[in-house]
Amino acid sequence: MASEMKINHSEKAYELLRADAEKILKLIKVQMDNLTMPQCPLYEEVLDTQMFGLSREIEFAVRLGLINEKDGKSLLDSLERELSALHEASTRK
Amino acid sequence: MASEMKINHSEKAYELLRADAEKILKLIKVQMDNLTMPQCPLYEEVLDTQMFGLSREIEFAVRLGLINEKDGKSLLDSLERELSALHEASTRK
Repeated sequence: MASEMKINHSEKAYELLRADAEKILKLIKVQMDNLTMPQCPLYEEVLDTQMFGLSREIEFAVRLGLINEKDGKSLLDSLERELSALHEASTRK
Repeated sequence: MASEMKINHSEKAYELLRADAEKILKLIKVQMDNLTMPQCPLYEEVLDTQMFGLSREIEFAVRLGLINEKDGKSLLDSLERELSALHEASTRK
């Protein structure tokens, strides 16, 4: 029962973090499609703020022992890769 | 056993969040004593960034069901009160 509880919190943490990463990706897509150019400082600032927020959440989940550090790092890395692919695609338009 | 596990994660979350709030307070004290004036834009920026980071951690813990929303809000509020008392004291120097 105890480990089941732990798994549930852990699963929930992964789920929330993945959803938050997805949200950042969507936000940046919307920004790119509609609002501002990637060269715009506002875009950079929004992205930096969101990435910082997510990295703090991940760090917190690691400190709580709910996710492991490697998974947290790989979640951030893969988001960064997707964002830079998006960025590249948009500058080629 | 299951609820004991939950309590442990919950206690740990409160503990980490309180420690983080304390860290912000100390950082700002050091800044005030040694580095910059409260009127300095850098000071404002550091404080904003730290408060944003803490509020994201609190929000995340609430979403995980580890702390309740009211406690999270009161942690942030009390930190803000302490910071503004500090700020006031330093401008009277």
